[in-house]
Amino acid sequence: MPRSHALPVPADAPLVRARRQRVQAAATGVAVLKGLSRLDGRASLTALAAQLGESPAKVHRYLQSLVEEGLVAQDPSSQHYYLGPEAIQIGIAAMRQADPLRAAEPALARLRERLEVTCFIAVMGNKGPTIVRFEEPGLPVTVNVRVGSVLSMLWSATGRVFLALADDSRVEAMAREELASATPEQRQQLDPHDPLGRLREEVRSLGMACIRDVYLQGISAVAAPLYDHSGRVRAVLTALGATGGFDASPQGPIAQALAVEARAASAVLGHRP
Amino acid sequence: MPRSHALPVPADAPLVRARRQRVQAAATGVAVLKGLSRLDGRASLTALAAQLGESPAKVHRYLQSLVEEGLVAQDPSSQHYYLGPEAIQIGIAAMRQADPLRAAEPALARLRERLEVTCFIAVMGNKGPTIVRFEEPGLPVTVNVRVGSVLSMLWSATGRVFLALADDSRVEAMAREELASATPEQRQQLDPHDPLGRLREEVRSLGMACIRDVYLQGISAVAAPLYDHSGRVRAVLTALGATGGFDASPQGPIAQALAVEARAASAVLGHRP
Repeated sequence: MPRSHALPVPADAPLVRARRQRVQAAATGVAVLKGLSRLDGRASLTALAAQLGESPAKVHRYLQSLVEEGLVAQDPSSQHYYLGPEAIQIGIAAMRQADPLRAAEPALARLRERLEVTCFIAVMGNKGPTIVRFEEPGLPVTVNVRVGSVLSMLWSATGRVFLALADDSRVEAMAREELASATPEQRQQLDPHDPLGRLREEVRSLGMACIRDVYLQGISAVAAPLYDHSGRVRAVLTALGATGGFDASPQGPIAQALAVEARAASAVLGHRP
Repeated sequence: MPRSHALPVPADAPLVRARRQRVQAAATGVAVLKGLSRLDGRASLTALAAQLGESPAKVHRYLQSLVEEGLVAQDPSSQHYYLGPEAIQIGIAAMRQADPLRAAEPALARLRERLEVTCFIAVMGNKGPTIVRFEEPGLPVTVNVRVGSVLSMLWSATGRVFLALADDSRVEAMAREELASATPEQRQQLDPHDPLGRLREEVRSLGMACIRDVYLQGISAVAAPLYDHSGRVRAVLTALGATGGFDASPQGPIAQALAVEARAASAVLGHRP
């Protein structure tokens, strides 16, 4: 059978082009919506057209369509356009879908591959910071963690991030409880006058927690927060390894990569720094 | 000069039609977004196409465009589509724009015209329920209110709506303070055993507050809450008049019209009952 070398049937082309134009138009409608959102949700036609780099006449046509769909409304006194009730509903549905586990999974995979370290995501459970997902590198010997493990509030890097950055009364209560039942050796690792306050200060100034041989002898870890749209810490991303082969310094490559990944996952959750 | 009776130049028609098609396409893109929002922000292509009554192929093209714009994302494991970070940002901007005053202004105008009653919008100020906007009917004699006036928490219809339905610790504190400094005559109007609890029960069962000669002799009023997207009471809409000519019963035409307007204004603020 002879192989055909013909180009795609030309008769298809107008249909394909028309489809592409329609999809392009849909993208323009969405761009108008995003433009209004960037202008804090409210703008004059002139300001919005300038922001989008489009003619006011064109932007006006798309706005009419968005007004009909309830995503945009027009203030009768100022004539300004603003994001309307349907935009609120879409935002609420999007916030409900924002899942820290899903947002941070690609980060786990990238950290494992790039840095060959064990890394995990922890959320605040009712017993304390709890590991919910982890990745380990394909090395012969690795430091392992277990899904479901509850970590220390005061002596793990993960716990310290929650302690310093989560606005949660349970966190404070759990930290005080751990402090009360700490051994003299554990207490020695903390500031004698203001143990919780100093831990918080340190984490807040770095934006992350870095520990070396604190929780477990021979183990170091760095941990960074995942924020959501409201600025709340929803989860903590942690990388750990054997102290000898793991650079836990805040300026080291592991901490820096972790910070970049935590910011990217936070952006997926709707966080704007 | 002879007047032209010519029809619009036919040469314009294709351009106009093409424009209309593009705007129609933008509306389709927005409809896909709204469809995903109705399905709680997450759905398979099949489910979304069924919800929209469109072919999966067409919905898929629009989804690709929404994915490119960051409004929608696709879960790599389930292949489901869900509302993404840009949708959160649009929702946040829309929530910031949701203004109870602007949402309820059309209601004030309609109530004044349809019922010929004085009506106002009050918000919770730092001294108590505060009138921020009012409309009075064009009658020779009307009951008047003043912008900036602070109303009683316990003896005004407006205050009772905040007391019963606003989840705000200041409201409780102000109500207790008023109760403590009430005259024996004022106390007599309330339940002797559980004055605040009974007031709350009454308003909650009606969904509004109706008073007659309680705050001021000869004045009756009905008040209903304006809820926002989170279910919080953002403002209260109140109608009032001289008791003789004002039907303050919960089933009367004024209370019923007020309830309809309060629900409509709440919907504009993103409230879904």
